[in-house]
Amino acid sequence: MNTSMIRFILGSILKIEAVLLFLPVICAVIYHESEGFAFFITAFLCFIVGFILTLRKPKDHIFYLKEGCITTACSWIIMSLFGAVPFVITGEIPSYLDALFETVSGFTTTGASILNDVEALSHASLLWRAFTHWIGGMGVLVFLLAILPMSGGSNINLLRAESPGPSVGKLAPKMRTTATMLYLFYLALTFMEFVLLLIFGMPLFDSICTAFSTAGTGGFGIKNDSIGGYATSIQWVVTVFMILFGINFNAYFFIWVRDFKKAFKMEEVRAYLGIIGTAIVLITLNILHTCENLFQAVTESAFQVASIITTTGYSTVDFDQWPSFSKTILVILMFIGACAGSTGGGIKVGRIVIVMKAFAKEAFSYIHPKSIRHLSMDKNPVKHEVLRSVNVFFDTYIAIFIISLLLVAIEGQGMQTNLTAVIACFNNIGPGLEGVGPTQNLAFFSPLSKIVLMFDMLAGRLELFPMILLFHPTIWKEAFERRYHSKKVKK
Amino acid sequence: MNTSMIRFILGSILKIEAVLLFLPVICAVIYHESEGFAFFITAFLCFIVGFILTLRKPKDHIFYLKEGCITTACSWIIMSLFGAVPFVITGEIPSYLDALFETVSGFTTTGASILNDVEALSHASLLWRAFTHWIGGMGVLVFLLAILPMSGGSNINLLRAESPGPSVGKLAPKMRTTATMLYLFYLALTFMEFVLLLIFGMPLFDSICTAFSTAGTGGFGIKNDSIGGYATSIQWVVTVFMILFGINFNAYFFIWVRDFKKAFKMEEVRAYLGIIGTAIVLITLNILHTCENLFQAVTESAFQVASIITTTGYSTVDFDQWPSFSKTILVILMFIGACAGSTGGGIKVGRIVIVMKAFAKEAFSYIHPKSIRHLSMDKNPVKHEVLRSVNVFFDTYIAIFIISLLLVAIEGQGMQTNLTAVIACFNNIGPGLEGVGPTQNLAFFSPLSKIVLMFDMLAGRLELFPMILLFHPTIWKEAFERRYHSKKVKK
Repeated sequence: MNTSMIRFILGSILKIEAVLLFLPVICAVIYHESEGFAFFITAFLCFIVGFILTLRKPKDHIFYLKEGCITTACSWIIMSLFGAVPFVITGEIPSYLDALFETVSGFTTTGASILNDVEALSHASLLWRAFTHWIGGMGVLVFLLAILPMSGGSNINLLRAESPGPSVGKLAPKMRTTATMLYLFYLALTFMEFVLLLIFGMPLFDSICTAFSTAGTGGFGIKNDSIGGYATSIQWVVTVFMILFGINFNAYFFIWVRDFKKAFKMEEVRAYLGIIGTAIVLITLNILHTCENLFQAVTESAFQVASIITTTGYSTVDFDQWPSFSKTILVILMFIGACAGSTGGGIKVGRIVIVMKAFAKEAFSYIHPKSIRHLSMDKNPVKHEVLRSVNVFFDTYIAIFIISLLLVAIEGQGMQTNLTAVIACFNNIGPGLEGVGPTQNLAFFSPLSKIVLMFDMLAGRLELFPMILLFHPTIWKEAFERRYHSKKVKK
Repeated sequence: MNTSMIRFILGSILKIEAVLLFLPVICAVIYHESEGFAFFITAFLCFIVGFILTLRKPKDHIFYLKEGCITTACSWIIMSLFGAVPFVITGEIPSYLDALFETVSGFTTTGASILNDVEALSHASLLWRAFTHWIGGMGVLVFLLAILPMSGGSNINLLRAESPGPSVGKLAPKMRTTATMLYLFYLALTFMEFVLLLIFGMPLFDSICTAFSTAGTGGFGIKNDSIGGYATSIQWVVTVFMILFGINFNAYFFIWVRDFKKAFKMEEVRAYLGIIGTAIVLITLNILHTCENLFQAVTESAFQVASIITTTGYSTVDFDQWPSFSKTILVILMFIGACAGSTGGGIKVGRIVIVMKAFAKEAFSYIHPKSIRHLSMDKNPVKHEVLRSVNVFFDTYIAIFIISLLLVAIEGQGMQTNLTAVIACFNNIGPGLEGVGPTQNLAFFSPLSKIVLMFDMLAGRLELFPMILLFHPTIWKEAFERRYHSKKVKK
């Protein structure tokens, strides 16, 4: 394993984090908050450690998928470990485990909070929480690819390990161009939302934080009632942008190169919008009798549907009070998630579409055993390996899900609380139902459950395999053997 | 489609049902119950319809998997439609829909009841309920294969459509011999349980009914507290036999031909017993503090685990009152189910084992991309098609599950009630949690929910595809076109 390259990348990540931590520092300076000092110390700490790790340049640049996975898992963990420090220093979250939970929840764009009263936080901390969403939404390694000149074509293994979805489309012939373009679309959309929020009367600070959170499909709010207290027009802006950030970013690329036909014919995007439309209609009909008028019902339904399917996790109403039919739809949307190649989490619409097509094909072959039908997606044939890996993804997903559920259940909370807590963290949504409903927080969980849920958030964000590999004995055996071997050689 | 052959088989099934209905008639004569008349009338009705349907012998005996599936689905439906009649005639279940629900639940070996007080039923009806489990456990078509001389080798398509599990092992070179042998093992094991129950002091009538219900892994009890009121020794007999009926019957075949090594090395059976052992230990530790002593805890835990994993659905305690950790384990066991080729339901341990192996292989290939590893089961390679069909099974399973959940949720019961009702019916278990817990019944559900749950029970018992095909437009189009075509020819 290319450990020196992994070390070097982890160091670079920390140096980037040091720079990013200056945003809350600046915010604290503007609002005259003493909490800024905590962020400054952490930035300094990040820089020192990053500097030490990057002192020696790696000789060997070759990088396989295995190394890509391990690096990705490690960099997300190390970023969270350092990102949690300011909350402890300021004393806003005294327990380091809780602070870590909050930070992992931020970077993974989950948005599940252990805080009871977010309005008590300093501006700097609120901004940092929202900013972690924005950083985590597109992924840090994508950013690294955009700025770090990596030789060799093997850096696609880094991108592949971090990107959400079954297929990483190479948008441009050069990896670096692809990464830059993804970040540009991301920046542009975030900025558009920020401006629109300002226009519709949201205060400046709120607009920045909300735009960051929406862009990363995170869901950390800066008010205790999430988005519920803002005007209806603002709620609609957030609704639309949540849906936009859940769309496969390839669509934006096609629009960019003026290939509108290709953009609007993407099967995944069509399915995604179709599901959203159906869910909004069904829930609207189901909650109509509890609302004042149709418009209010549509507004509430659309916001919650967009928030859950994109795995953002904002709320404008306490949907735990909705009738079970609507709640069941929301739980199903939690699993489906957004499009592949978006900032959203969940299983991803693309995978669902592939699986549905495989099913239709199988049912057809039962009736016409001699027929030969090929799976295709956007008119391209779906390779056997893609279908197989989608199926393995599902199996792994279920396995992690069951083990997490069992571990969280040890503590003895209600079954629906456990179930939706795992669903909400694993799919990077945030709120669940009952004990972890939109008006609740996750502080009451035991340390074991919190660790399990943190693992789930990371596994969910990194599409399972990087986190699984981290715990695979072979990896450790190899790393150990290599060390042992190199020591022996030195002797 | 070979409709005349399908008609002929359905007629034969009804003639068999007419014969089977004489068991409750005899029971009624012994106990001097007037209810026997209802069963006699139904038997007569079955015979008449069956006679008419079998008047004309089919010319063409060729039978494809498609026809096998359709025949299987239709025969289970027609048997239930007629089997429900006696309950309505006797007035014990006045609503035909409820009676049908009870009968479907019987034949599919689910054991979910809409009855509040089963002790109020006549002996004849109690026996018929238990007997439907026994008939449904091994499958009627297997029986038909054993007695009906069908020409051509295509009758494996019938067996394949009805048998539970991913692979139908041909035990003997002749299909008919295989079917006869399966029924012989089934009879022998049922008889052994019956004798043991008698020895341990269960009354004669109770022993017969309990043996029938256990053998089919059904779960209809003849007491309101299921098996809870019987002695501990009787509970242990039932526990052991539930586990035995959940084992792949191929194992009994290997023991029969004295190939003990092969029998005890079956990977599926080992996994099945391993899961049972683990679950019993975990639940025992979890409920220990609520029990008087360790033995009581083990007894309760073992009984419930065996009952749920084999999808029998008997209970000796109200496990809805257990801590959530134990309940979570039970819910997981509900999905896993028993072995393929047993009378139990659920996803089947064999499928889980294959999927786990596929996952281990994929994880390995991430680390060693160039390695070639083959999936094997019991030292035989697992073909690509088997893995693919297992995966398609999972996808279909999830799809049916979600649609059912949504349809049942319309009515607005609690989410856990809906969820476990669908789980319990779809996996042919019987009781769920909360509103459908072991001390409750399903009478309160709306007609729509009952129909959905009936579909789930049939789909679960027939391994999804036969019931799905029944609703596939192509099938109906074909049947219609054929009719239209033959009419035109006559002109």
